[in-house]
Amino acid sequence: MKKEILKRLKEAEGYVSGQELCDSLGVSRTAVWKAVRLLEEEGYRIQAVRNKGYRLSTDSDVLSVDELSQEICGSWAGKHLVVLKTVDSTNLEARRQAEDGAPHGTLVLAENQTAGKGRRGRFWESPEGTGIWMSLLLRPDFEPVHASMLTLLAAMAVVKGIRQATGLSCQIKWPNDIVLNGKKICGILTEMSTEEDCIRYVVVGIGINANLEGFPEELKEKGTSLLLESGKPVRRAKLAAAVLSVWEDYYEEFLKTLDFSSLMEEYNEHLVNRDRQVTVLAPGGAWQGISMGINREGELLVRRTDGTVEAVMSGEVSVRGVYGYV
Amino acid sequence: MKKEILKRLKEAEGYVSGQELCDSLGVSRTAVWKAVRLLEEEGYRIQAVRNKGYRLSTDSDVLSVDELSQEICGSWAGKHLVVLKTVDSTNLEARRQAEDGAPHGTLVLAENQTAGKGRRGRFWESPEGTGIWMSLLLRPDFEPVHASMLTLLAAMAVVKGIRQATGLSCQIKWPNDIVLNGKKICGILTEMSTEEDCIRYVVVGIGINANLEGFPEELKEKGTSLLLESGKPVRRAKLAAAVLSVWEDYYEEFLKTLDFSSLMEEYNEHLVNRDRQVTVLAPGGAWQGISMGINREGELLVRRTDGTVEAVMSGEVSVRGVYGYV
Repeated sequence: MKKEILKRLKEAEGYVSGQELCDSLGVSRTAVWKAVRLLEEEGYRIQAVRNKGYRLSTDSDVLSVDELSQEICGSWAGKHLVVLKTVDSTNLEARRQAEDGAPHGTLVLAENQTAGKGRRGRFWESPEGTGIWMSLLLRPDFEPVHASMLTLLAAMAVVKGIRQATGLSCQIKWPNDIVLNGKKICGILTEMSTEEDCIRYVVVGIGINANLEGFPEELKEKGTSLLLESGKPVRRAKLAAAVLSVWEDYYEEFLKTLDFSSLMEEYNEHLVNRDRQVTVLAPGGAWQGISMGINREGELLVRRTDGTVEAVMSGEVSVRGVYGYV
Repeated sequence: MKKEILKRLKEAEGYVSGQELCDSLGVSRTAVWKAVRLLEEEGYRIQAVRNKGYRLSTDSDVLSVDELSQEICGSWAGKHLVVLKTVDSTNLEARRQAEDGAPHGTLVLAENQTAGKGRRGRFWESPEGTGIWMSLLLRPDFEPVHASMLTLLAAMAVVKGIRQATGLSCQIKWPNDIVLNGKKICGILTEMSTEEDCIRYVVVGIGINANLEGFPEELKEKGTSLLLESGKPVRRAKLAAAVLSVWEDYYEEFLKTLDFSSLMEEYNEHLVNRDRQVTVLAPGGAWQGISMGINREGELLVRRTDGTVEAVMSGEVSVRGVYGYV
């Protein structure tokens, strides 16, 4: 019933009278009142005014199963939801869920991560209730060799999802980061489990700095949030759902060829370090070149000063661009 | 002290007197007797004869930490041992150990698997106390793309280890099986966990039908054991240690080039279906050709009837040879 009341409050323009809720749902006033209290506990801001009824504040920002399942409209991404108040890391939880047999498209989302993971085992700051910390479980039946491109797909989904939900235009810092006005707004971490040459599962973790109100001094130059850049808080459930929806589209497109032949043009349009000088930190030593964009295999093409072009894989190198964060 | 007594009994030719053990170890007769009882409980067959002392039967076949650590002589493979009476599957346990931070070279070994896994999720029969059911944890720092070759390395180690420990000459059925006189004697299952383009860990599971005394009717034509083929039981700890020791050598050789350039000749000498007709069960349909051996990438080269040669990856296909088992 709580879910039904939430739906009515969302659909309504303005107030919904308590009596109307009682009548249409066939329950008592007390039952309605109790459900409203439960919604408030979940984080919804609900105004109750005598003789008018209840009204849902449009700035309510709740990440609950009810809220998310109402927003998520695709066919598989996020159909199975695991929403937690706190977790060590959503990637770890998604891997545990995967080992327990969770289906393709399972989404793990948490308000707080106590051991959020960045790339190469770095700690990822994930303050409570302000970001989108989520991991999508995929069970593709293609070969492991194609899986590194799933990170790039997720990056495209984040950029497009953010634009749809907020109007903000972010860019991709190949391969794992999304930046806004030159500062990091999102990181992506893809993990995989294989058996021989078959994928058992892939977990794509995404951390979006949505409503973070500030950063510690040492990160101020490197990171930002959607709230800080736009001045407006974002409804995280809506944003998460937008990302998942476009992700499904990109994924289906990718499956047709198992490469980026039809996606690389769009990807490269969003590439922050395109046509710019980058430093490639290869195992054999660092070298500089001009980043030209990705090829259909998802590798970054970098032109050396002698004119030769090298395809760089994400595992081999880190790429430092014009920005200080790496 | 139990370990020390075991060592003395093994070194001795014939009987070791109880008094001698007491004197050299500085313990009482009762303590020696108790330690001998413990060893018997572990499965050692120890004869005790008045006025002569104790003698270890040469056909004692025990898989314990003590026994294995005395046999294993390499520098890393099996240095960290997890030996279990029973487990769901050694691969699953090795993955759990890996997630808990177990080091490179950790070996998980069990007397009995309740959910032993074959390729593609098939159940693997692993009767108690007769086989070698073990999984080696590797933490290589090369890229995931090279990992499929670890199955081939393990196959070479099993063939050479079996020859060293028993004198029997097995052959490899690319990519995952070892056969003896045309029947399956060993299966290999490699699993991997990655993070972006880095390997978190690889688990290589090996099941060797060592002392199995028989097979169910439906498997008789397909599977066999070292005992059935040679008429002699094998000391499993010795065999496991032999496999691990040569595995280290092959692994170090592989690391030099990250391919099979220096190993493929030896590998191909052991290939059961070399120069024979094989059926390639590709996704697009089955086709026939002559198996020519692996290339340096570990792919199987198959010559079509029109003379063209195709490199076949293990994930794409199954190969059926002259034998009925697949």
